[in-house]
Amino acid sequence: MSQLHPALYVRQGQIPFFRLPTVDVRQGPAAYQGAEAVLLGVPWDGGTTHQPGARFAPWEVRRVSAMIQPYHPVHEVDVFGTLACVDGGNVMIPPFSAAGARELITQEITAVLEARALPFVVGGDHSVTLPILRAIAAVHGPVQVVQLDAHLDTSTGDLWGDDFHHGTPFRHALNEGLIPQGGLHQVGIRGAFGDAEERAFGARFGTQVYGAELIEDLGIRSVATRIRAALGDRPTYLSFDVDGLDPAFAPGTGTPVPGGLTAREVLVLLQALRGTQVVGMDVVEICPSRDTHDLTARLGAQLLFEGLALAAVARVR
Amino acid sequence: MSQLHPALYVRQGQIPFFRLPTVDVRQGPAAYQGAEAVLLGVPWDGGTTHQPGARFAPWEVRRVSAMIQPYHPVHEVDVFGTLACVDGGNVMIPPFSAAGARELITQEITAVLEARALPFVVGGDHSVTLPILRAIAAVHGPVQVVQLDAHLDTSTGDLWGDDFHHGTPFRHALNEGLIPQGGLHQVGIRGAFGDAEERAFGARFGTQVYGAELIEDLGIRSVATRIRAALGDRPTYLSFDVDGLDPAFAPGTGTPVPGGLTAREVLVLLQALRGTQVVGMDVVEICPSRDTHDLTARLGAQLLFEGLALAAVARVR
Amino acid sequence: MSQLHPALYVRQGQIPFFRLPTVDVRQGPAAYQGAEAVLLGVPWDGGTTHQPGARFAPWEVRRVSAMIQPYHPVHEVDVFGTLACVDGGNVMIPPFSAAGARELITQEITAVLEARALPFVVGGDHSVTLPILRAIAAVHGPVQVVQLDAHLDTSTGDLWGDDFHHGTPFRHALNEGLIPQGGLHQVGIRGAFGDAEERAFGARFGTQVYGAELIEDLGIRSVATRIRAALGDRPTYLSFDVDGLDPAFAPGTGTPVPGGLTAREVLVLLQALRGTQVVGMDVVEICPSRDTHDLTARLGAQLLFEGLALAAVARVR
Amino acid sequence: MSQLHPALYVRQGQIPFFRLPTVDVRQGPAAYQGAEAVLLGVPWDGGTTHQPGARFAPWEVRRVSAMIQPYHPVHEVDVFGTLACVDGGNVMIPPFSAAGARELITQEITAVLEARALPFVVGGDHSVTLPILRAIAAVHGPVQVVQLDAHLDTSTGDLWGDDFHHGTPFRHALNEGLIPQGGLHQVGIRGAFGDAEERAFGARFGTQVYGAELIEDLGIRSVATRIRAALGDRPTYLSFDVDGLDPAFAPGTGTPVPGGLTAREVLVLLQALRGTQVVGMDVVEICPSRDTHDLTARLGAQLLFEGLALAAVARVR
Amino acid sequence: MSQLHPALYVRQGQIPFFRLPTVDVRQGPAAYQGAEAVLLGVPWDGGTTHQPGARFAPWEVRRVSAMIQPYHPVHEVDVFGTLACVDGGNVMIPPFSAAGARELITQEITAVLEARALPFVVGGDHSVTLPILRAIAAVHGPVQVVQLDAHLDTSTGDLWGDDFHHGTPFRHALNEGLIPQGGLHQVGIRGAFGDAEERAFGARFGTQVYGAELIEDLGIRSVATRIRAALGDRPTYLSFDVDGLDPAFAPGTGTPVPGGLTAREVLVLLQALRGTQVVGMDVVEICPSRDTHDLTARLGAQLLFEGLALAAVARVR
Amino acid sequence: MSQLHPALYVRQGQIPFFRLPTVDVRQGPAAYQGAEAVLLGVPWDGGTTHQPGARFAPWEVRRVSAMIQPYHPVHEVDVFGTLACVDGGNVMIPPFSAAGARELITQEITAVLEARALPFVVGGDHSVTLPILRAIAAVHGPVQVVQLDAHLDTSTGDLWGDDFHHGTPFRHALNEGLIPQGGLHQVGIRGAFGDAEERAFGARFGTQVYGAELIEDLGIRSVATRIRAALGDRPTYLSFDVDGLDPAFAPGTGTPVPGGLTAREVLVLLQALRGTQVVGMDVVEICPSRDTHDLTARLGAQLLFEGLALAAVARVR
Repeated sequence: MSQLHPALYVRQGQIPFFRLPTVDVRQGPAAYQGAEAVLLGVPWDGGTTHQPGARFAPWEVRRVSAMIQPYHPVHEVDVFGTLACVDGGNVMIPPFSAAGARELITQEITAVLEARALPFVVGGDHSVTLPILRAIAAVHGPVQVVQLDAHLDTSTGDLWGDDFHHGTPFRHALNEGLIPQGGLHQVGIRGAFGDAEERAFGARFGTQVYGAELIEDLGIRSVATRIRAALGDRPTYLSFDVDGLDPAFAPGTGTPVPGGLTAREVLVLLQALRGTQVVGMDVVEICPSRDTHDLTARLGAQLLFEGLALAAVARVR
Repeated sequence: MSQLHPALYVRQGQIPFFRLPTVDVRQGPAAYQGAEAVLLGVPWDGGTTHQPGARFAPWEVRRVSAMIQPYHPVHEVDVFGTLACVDGGNVMIPPFSAAGARELITQEITAVLEARALPFVVGGDHSVTLPILRAIAAVHGPVQVVQLDAHLDTSTGDLWGDDFHHGTPFRHALNEGLIPQGGLHQVGIRGAFGDAEERAFGARFGTQVYGAELIEDLGIRSVATRIRAALGDRPTYLSFDVDGLDPAFAPGTGTPVPGGLTAREVLVLLQALRGTQVVGMDVVEICPSRDTHDLTARLGAQLLFEGLALAAVARVR
Repeated sequence: MSQLHPALYVRQGQIPFFRLPTVDVRQGPAAYQGAEAVLLGVPWDGGTTHQPGARFAPWEVRRVSAMIQPYHPVHEVDVFGTLACVDGGNVMIPPFSAAGARELITQEITAVLEARALPFVVGGDHSVTLPILRAIAAVHGPVQVVQLDAHLDTSTGDLWGDDFHHGTPFRHALNEGLIPQGGLHQVGIRGAFGDAEERAFGARFGTQVYGAELIEDLGIRSVATRIRAALGDRPTYLSFDVDGLDPAFAPGTGTPVPGGLTAREVLVLLQALRGTQVVGMDVVEICPSRDTHDLTARLGAQLLFEGLALAAVARVR
Repeated sequence: MSQLHPALYVRQGQIPFFRLPTVDVRQGPAAYQGAEAVLLGVPWDGGTTHQPGARFAPWEVRRVSAMIQPYHPVHEVDVFGTLACVDGGNVMIPPFSAAGARELITQEITAVLEARALPFVVGGDHSVTLPILRAIAAVHGPVQVVQLDAHLDTSTGDLWGDDFHHGTPFRHALNEGLIPQGGLHQVGIRGAFGDAEERAFGARFGTQVYGAELIEDLGIRSVATRIRAALGDRPTYLSFDVDGLDPAFAPGTGTPVPGGLTAREVLVLLQALRGTQVVGMDVVEICPSRDTHDLTARLGAQLLFEGLALAAVARVR
Repeated sequence: MSQLHPALYVRQGQIPFFRLPTVDVRQGPAAYQGAEAVLLGVPWDGGTTHQPGARFAPWEVRRVSAMIQPYHPVHEVDVFGTLACVDGGNVMIPPFSAAGARELITQEITAVLEARALPFVVGGDHSVTLPILRAIAAVHGPVQVVQLDAHLDTSTGDLWGDDFHHGTPFRHALNEGLIPQGGLHQVGIRGAFGDAEERAFGARFGTQVYGAELIEDLGIRSVATRIRAALGDRPTYLSFDVDGLDPAFAPGTGTPVPGGLTAREVLVLLQALRGTQVVGMDVVEICPSRDTHDLTARLGAQLLFEGLALAAVARVR
Repeated sequence: MSQLHPALYVRQGQIPFFRLPTVDVRQGPAAYQGAEAVLLGVPWDGGTTHQPGARFAPWEVRRVSAMIQPYHPVHEVDVFGTLACVDGGNVMIPPFSAAGARELITQEITAVLEARALPFVVGGDHSVTLPILRAIAAVHGPVQVVQLDAHLDTSTGDLWGDDFHHGTPFRHALNEGLIPQGGLHQVGIRGAFGDAEERAFGARFGTQVYGAELIEDLGIRSVATRIRAALGDRPTYLSFDVDGLDPAFAPGTGTPVPGGLTAREVLVLLQALRGTQVVGMDVVEICPSRDTHDLTARLGAQLLFEGLALAAVARVR
């Protein structure tokens, strides 16, 4: 074929996230002045090892986000009335260079942070989290991470020459010191591993794993309370891979694993993090070509809204 | 296009609900004599603000209802052997007048009630509940309502000239005095509102809201027991919007909201209402064009069966 | 449910048709100054007698239109480089009044025409064509119409009190004198009618019917040449109902009829109209909830592009 | 699982084919008195060698047949006003005995024929044609057959002990003398065979094969005219396997083969048979679990209607 | 149609279960020497009373099983490193004889047992369990069974002459003495029965029923612990019908019933059986034509893996 | 996520193409000795500019190819009995280096050619054709190409640093001299271009373009005859991008364009090439995640079979 898809590589256009104002991206970083939160799409799935297609998620999440209203009844806060949010468009990524993609992502997040705004990102695959954390740690120092995921994403993937793919972001983040000792909380982990070493890697960094079976036994409220207590008031980043949910709730993802969290549990988890100092968030691995009737996209929009609500609550305290 | 769909506007034909006897609708209200419960389809979705299509639900629910057998093992009752049920066909509704639709629905429900039978309705969108409640309250006086829903449906939607749509039935019902003070129980509510006032409206009428997070924390059995106790032995109407369920369980609906109830929870809720004086029921907002492999239609048929089982149990006590 | 869907009723937002410039709708008709063609969405499906949902078509067609490049190789013209096109957003239609909807559509098209631009509309159901033709005939006088359709859409639907639905636009247009004698060309007609009178109505107005069987026998090129000759250089409106195509090519529609045109035939038909004085176009009855993988939306975008190419060709002659 | 699907094994209920009158099946063959055509469902797919599920076709075809109106504009005949048609319900078939199934089908068709009515059958898989032809030949003697199919269905399947499956009905029919020499016309044949012998079998009986490539080259009108001429005025049975169509037009079938006929070609084929003495028809191999948005079911209903129109035309001549 | 589907009836080919070694089936039973577990496909759905198609499950489960890695983090065991597993291919079953099918299945399982290996089977419908249990009981004597199911599968189906269908395997197994008194544990039962007698049958054999409502109230951990205690160290067979899960988690099945277990609950159930003496397992009723994006196939592969993990754990103790 | 998908990167396993013998890939090129045609999967979609996912096509095409029998009735040849074919497995491609991918593909095709066998490849995206042509031209010198495609695939894509993507294979092939002057035949081209230069590039190399409109007007037989005449007896490579077909026939592709060829036309095109000296073939751009019920995969298998039949015919002449 000979047609390039311009929509993937333009910086803007599309109904904005939550019908928020958009920015004039030709201004560069100045465009973000005055924003307290910047929503960005990162249409990159070049780090996918199995079913690709997450590059299309920002468009779908924007579309369905138009259904979400501003007032959060549990937190009792008007999210968009409280927190100045803008849709910053998509990070423009040339499609054939993973290294270039990481650099561009780090640059854009840095621009957001320099405007003293919080980045909220819709991926793309989970490999986008590493360049985001690099930008954040450059400003905040090492940050705690609450990771929703079916997978540890710390695999020792020194296969194939390039191991910066969606199975390794947290191994690199830990190795690069972007996350403090004991600062990684992994929720929803389940399924088989390659070997026993996979868990051992995280354990050396004091990583806490809250497996799916634990949540079945204790209930999400109890687990969430435990995580909230551990986070304290230190800066925390939220990295939500939708495959942490059971594929019944999030079929539109590239590496589904049976036995995950329900949508309600994940929403309760996020609501229970109230008071946490959230410094940014990503929602990743939404693969529209595997979705059914926007089930996963809609969930992704809701997760984003819950993250923004946490930031709004922090604003009004 | 110029073809009208006759199936939508004929009174009969089609496999009956649960393979029940049908009535000769040419007899008018007399057709219902001897019936203790009348099942009706109300193929009206003219009150839909987003994805329409619920008009086709009665056909799909009838089709899959043929799989449900008569004996309810939890209640230990032969439902159709105990309760004289008939399929009353569909309420014939001219497609382009909402006011006319409401009137026809009230008339047909009144005919059912005059035959001293209980109405069990498959919508249609949630706007059909208001004309049903008008007919019921005219006979029983104000009746308590157990409403399954993601939304409050009491929105102050005085926009667009006509606010009798599927976002307002319970605001009208409360304002018209069809429901007594403290008589509305809303289960499964979640997601964002337009503003804080939305909840305040119901609160003025003593409405009880059992949000999705509460059910996650307490369990449905505990919540259901609380509702059952509150209902006492006063007449109660059941209004079950399938979007009260999580879209993983009920994808075939027009306004899905993540984080809802599981199918099992809703079935337990209904079973726990045993002993309630049920005066009628509707199952609404099933949108077949968004369903996958009859998941939602099948659930709708099961909810209807559970409602009939409650009435059958009351019959044998 | 209680949430209204703002996306349906906002005037703008969304990736523009073909990535064209958008207008500042707050300026009113002045917004269209300088445009030679204005693309509009009309999200109205209140005239649907069977499967509704066409209200969502403008969003889907916009999204997939981003894939279409500007140079038309058959006409050898750079469409968007030649014809000054803008995306005028959607006509905002309150959802519960058909009469009000018709009035708003006529108003908006009138505004486009007053700016001396050509209207190109994505519906919505086929009932939107009548108010468009009213606006056009007010400026141009009666205009010829090339109608792609499975149905005649001239049904004598005096049923239900309101017969301004998607089965009657051309009956009204003929009766109101919006189309000259012999000026209606209906392509793709097929399937059964209610009775023999249906065809007789159009015959009285000299309507030409090119049934699907005729196209099978003669080939589309021959039929298109005949239509082109008949049109001469008089003003002509194009009204393309996607159910004129076989449902294999356009599954996403509310009233599919087997045996229609192929996508290639419809494209050849449009290309063969080169030289016709096109005064406007609509593409209607795209129902996204019945579409599979954007097959129909993509076709709709292509039809729109072909119509614009005809206008661009006229511009360069 | 332990639930049987009663709908499969009851004799009635369900929206009738084309909203026709139904019969009181408790009367036995007398029920058909006065009918000129009897429509029957034969929910049997026990002869399927690959994807089963055609047992559900009668329900789906009935449902979508409600959209088809009575007047045929090509033949200029009011089909149901001319030909006295009834829906005879489904042939009740115990699910686990193929031999028993065949016997029951022959019995029911015999009953139809004894009432001097024409049988029009919706299968089921193609193995149902053999017992139908047995009944017909017992009354009419050997009958010509126009078979639409991707496959010859004369395979020498002496594998597995029982070779009365959906790959062999016409081998048995030829061997049993149910079809006269030169009386079998096979349209749409394509794809690979097991060996050269497959075609040789039919050739010994003078069978005419009109392969898909021939139709591409000559056009369906020419092929249909040739078949019509060959049929003369001798009794002819129509056996339409939807896999004769290309899977783009009829995806809902169990053994799809690329390269088949278009829907329009098959409709033209049937219309071109005008004047043929049709003694019955079947439409088989519609597999709803593989269908998309009723594409195939709708086509099946249309084929049935075209067959009935041929019979109606014969009635008025 | 005339093509037979060879893939259904060949003994091998296809990516092996979990990428395990395959055997040379031409060796007969000797092929299994050295294996501790043999995985077999049984593509038989001739016992289906409603939606057929489970015959295709072995291919789909094999394909998605390639995603599952060897190390089980809950049991801390390298499953395939510990237990010598092979893919034994499919049991070749002539398609048109249920009795023959049962015999072939019993023979193949006997061959596996004679090699002192454990059989792990992917059906097929639930009727395949009876011939498996016959082979197992011939070696082990009566064995306990943990049955996941929505249905009791002990129906007194003496209808239709042949009652060896998928609604009766456990009635026959109990009557034939293949299961000891009190040895049948049925988990996930729900929905309506034909009458009260259905439950009474199992009760006479001391069958334990753990209905869906019980699991909602007690939690799966508690129920699983109770079952584990009851099993002791006696030989136990696992028979997992995916319709025991809620259709939201396992849509790809022929007889779905709302209100079932979550995927996570079923995984916890299997993990809680640690220490049980597993003598074999089947995973049945996966119907690919009803699946969405491999949701059910993937779950089936995971269940199989959990069963193998139990056997591997037993091996290392 | 942390799981790598082994199935993508293993060399073998899976039901073989057309149930052919497989080779022992550990032998290296020697494995192909004795084969006349080698079928290879190339699961690479790293050259995709829009919807990725073609990496999964080899598995799906293998699976459905099992339905195709050996005897070709038009060519009257037993394809697999005449031509010694083997399934060579998949080319193992590390996922994150396009340059490495191209090198590996060239190597594997060279190995096939060294065994004096013909390569038949299932992609992957269209970027895989360039490295195949490099290997072939190294042996045969410049080869003619018959390219089925909606797109020219000669775009001057010097954007993004790396222009070896699926929009450029034939620009590189022409520039590198892999195709002789006048040796490229492009069938099915349609839709808009970026500018007039796109066509000019090919024209300089004497490329013949057979647009979709031309095929509508002349018929495929006529066009195919013309191509066949032009090819003469010089070595010819077939490169079939399924997006050359209309998306109604091949929905499972990443860059669909309305208005393409029918399945029957493409089969006739291939059959009409009888006598051409075919030196290899690829079938590319099958994207399973966009397919519906294997429509496109099945077509891909059939195209492959037709190509093999051409080679078999040449063998027996």
